[in-house]
Amino acid sequence: MQLSTRHLLGIRDLQPDDIQLILDTATQFKEVLQRPIKKVPTLRDVTIVNLFYENSTRTRISFELAEKRLSADTINFTASGSSAAKGETLLDTVNNILSMKVDMVVMRHSASGAPHFLARHIPAAIVNAGDGINEHPTQALLDAFSIREKFGTLAGRKIAIIGDIMHSRVALSNIYLLKKMGAEVMVAGPPTLIPVHIREAFDIRVEYNLRRALEWCDVANVLRIQLERQNQPLFSSLREYSLEYGVNRRLLDNLSKEIVIMHPGPINRGVELDSDVADSKQSLILHQVENGVAVRMAVLYLLAGRSSN
Amino acid sequence: MQLSTRHLLGIRDLQPDDIQLILDTATQFKEVLQRPIKKVPTLRDVTIVNLFYENSTRTRISFELAEKRLSADTINFTASGSSAAKGETLLDTVNNILSMKVDMVVMRHSASGAPHFLARHIPAAIVNAGDGINEHPTQALLDAFSIREKFGTLAGRKIAIIGDIMHSRVALSNIYLLKKMGAEVMVAGPPTLIPVHIREAFDIRVEYNLRRALEWCDVANVLRIQLERQNQPLFSSLREYSLEYGVNRRLLDNLSKEIVIMHPGPINRGVELDSDVADSKQSLILHQVENGVAVRMAVLYLLAGRSSN
Amino acid sequence: MQLSTRHLLGIRDLQPDDIQLILDTATQFKEVLQRPIKKVPTLRDVTIVNLFYENSTRTRISFELAEKRLSADTINFTASGSSAAKGETLLDTVNNILSMKVDMVVMRHSASGAPHFLARHIPAAIVNAGDGINEHPTQALLDAFSIREKFGTLAGRKIAIIGDIMHSRVALSNIYLLKKMGAEVMVAGPPTLIPVHIREAFDIRVEYNLRRALEWCDVANVLRIQLERQNQPLFSSLREYSLEYGVNRRLLDNLSKEIVIMHPGPINRGVELDSDVADSKQSLILHQVENGVAVRMAVLYLLAGRSSN
Repeated sequence: MQLSTRHLLGIRDLQPDDIQLILDTATQFKEVLQRPIKKVPTLRDVTIVNLFYENSTRTRISFELAEKRLSADTINFTASGSSAAKGETLLDTVNNILSMKVDMVVMRHSASGAPHFLARHIPAAIVNAGDGINEHPTQALLDAFSIREKFGTLAGRKIAIIGDIMHSRVALSNIYLLKKMGAEVMVAGPPTLIPVHIREAFDIRVEYNLRRALEWCDVANVLRIQLERQNQPLFSSLREYSLEYGVNRRLLDNLSKEIVIMHPGPINRGVELDSDVADSKQSLILHQVENGVAVRMAVLYLLAGRSSN
Repeated sequence: MQLSTRHLLGIRDLQPDDIQLILDTATQFKEVLQRPIKKVPTLRDVTIVNLFYENSTRTRISFELAEKRLSADTINFTASGSSAAKGETLLDTVNNILSMKVDMVVMRHSASGAPHFLARHIPAAIVNAGDGINEHPTQALLDAFSIREKFGTLAGRKIAIIGDIMHSRVALSNIYLLKKMGAEVMVAGPPTLIPVHIREAFDIRVEYNLRRALEWCDVANVLRIQLERQNQPLFSSLREYSLEYGVNRRLLDNLSKEIVIMHPGPINRGVELDSDVADSKQSLILHQVENGVAVRMAVLYLLAGRSSN
Repeated sequence: MQLSTRHLLGIRDLQPDDIQLILDTATQFKEVLQRPIKKVPTLRDVTIVNLFYENSTRTRISFELAEKRLSADTINFTASGSSAAKGETLLDTVNNILSMKVDMVVMRHSASGAPHFLARHIPAAIVNAGDGINEHPTQALLDAFSIREKFGTLAGRKIAIIGDIMHSRVALSNIYLLKKMGAEVMVAGPPTLIPVHIREAFDIRVEYNLRRALEWCDVANVLRIQLERQNQPLFSSLREYSLEYGVNRRLLDNLSKEIVIMHPGPINRGVELDSDVADSKQSLILHQVENGVAVRMAVLYLLAGRSSN
């Protein structure tokens, strides 16, 4: 089995069979990660460069661990301390790195579409590790993996994505993926943080009331309030946001059923999520992080196979 | 033989037998480092993350070399370019990294007690690579290793620790270690840089006169003047400090015996130590650096063995 | 065969036989880089530290790839986040790193002569990866390799080096190398950017008119305008520089023969070089980058062999 695509630029470009293949492959790699010897020789002699033009802890470390456990050679590159400061174009930087016989590029960039632009101009496989407010496909894949692991299937599950939908690449990738796999999707949050035509554009539910959203769903995927992505104040204060849209223990205890909580991290504790929820048994958050390594191993493995044809 | 502790948080928590075991194990690793092939497969498949929230050259590189020579996989993480900038808690950062199946954490942090806090909440072994003004245990171990290598034993040796005792985690770790191993300890420096009750608290000598301190000791461990750790001016000028407490050739030549000079680096040449002392045969400084790799290999090896039980 | 030198500090110190040996060895390593398995065990157990005191993308990554493909262990060190911020001397930093049993040092530094200073004081082999406005020897070697690959030989070839000759370590290393290997050399650019006595000092041609320079040469090595190295304005504006000294398609099409274009990167597109030249078949730019890894593998291999005597 092979992916239908040479790159992982976004979930939008994937077929349901691609998603199925990635999740099934990740299941096998997760098994590897439970063993005492977590390393496989699969990508020995493949060189991967991690190009991070934006801050990141967990995504970069997760990719680096995935690469090392596949026995790939890794080169790290961050925007500071680099030619970017000398005004080189993105395309020149990447073309130069590829001329050194690098096989794959994992890229995070603040500009939406940056990896798509590269993919049109370079021969190597590209993995989008987050581009502006567009997509973050490996996050959506690890979220899906975690839901499937919990419930056995995605089809028919009710997932509410809660928070700043407007500026979230995690939300967009999740919506694409969940719809393709037959889940029911709701977005919930303040009207100012939800795009106006999203209901029609994606055939999803929109809810402005947190309690009703939680009452409806099986899984609440709570987004981080990313103040750094908001150019204007879209809600009056963090405290007010927390009062109206913060997920807390009292809200969950008053629901008619037990739901599952997810969060892509890093958490603003006490803002969008309270600690006694984040650290409870209902939370899949640390499972998401663990699954991230397996999912990224699967993506790198499948794309490397493809590009070696 | 095993350590009595799961972490290396400070010398305070170690038994004399633990210290003995670490120093003996380091002796074997130092032998390995003299061979043409300096690498052993001991920690193959162990993943170690180096979490440095404070600037460091030698300590980070020393740990990284120790890890690589034990064949561990290493992940480097520095505070800049990370989720720390996004306001994530230390505990969340570390929990996330551990969920990715990382086995050990080497941490430097500006807050005293940060590694102890972590140790209460996470399952992995933690090595304190310096926390605030509290402890720097691997520095004290490599200092002890260097003294033992020179004199054969620590018991009965007279060590004077000279300089800013008040703000020095190196001083505190050294005092704990040397007292546990039966050495005689003196601290020397300006009264403003020596805690008032230190004599009674640790049963050590206090001396405000540099010449008398040097006359008494077998080993002078000269501390770096760490201007970055002083919030108020505790001496009037670097020049005045140097005149009263700088160790120079003339002072050493006027002693009745030859003593040994140590310094944890980086040296402020011409301030606390003159170049013709630092670079002389009496100086153990570069031996300390070399021994640091062997001592850190020993600590990582012993803690990894412990945590695999 | 062996190099006549223990370090690669500059092309100035090399014999023609040394250059020949490096280029021939690089030819073999370039062959390795065409294979599916690009890694050789040659420097297994050699530890190399990359000391970069100046920003760099391609040079650092190129060295790191060369090291990893020779199976060396690598330690990266950049000036920020280091003891340099604590005021340690360069010599202390390097001595400390070497005490940890590091075998080779690759260094970039903003001070001309910094690696030469080190070479007088430390036992390990040093590779200069660029020092101030002095030399950048591996760049000149990869440029020579690329010309030799294209034309079969350096002797008798006409190379014009175009741009800011005054502040360019690439220009200086290229002049030394090309003259030693029997090529004809011209420097071209505005009079303010060409040292006054350079014609006599190196027995080379000087040309202030770009069209005449291009008409003369087989190869135009176009330098980057390095605004960061100019303390005073030496030309009135980038636009004016580009109009008089920018290499563009129209100029090349009007020549009586086809010449080859080189550039050390990163390119200021539209300033010293137009995109339809940089990306054309006449351009060797990406070959230069690819050859850089092979040339650096050759240098590291030859110096390691030397230092193991």
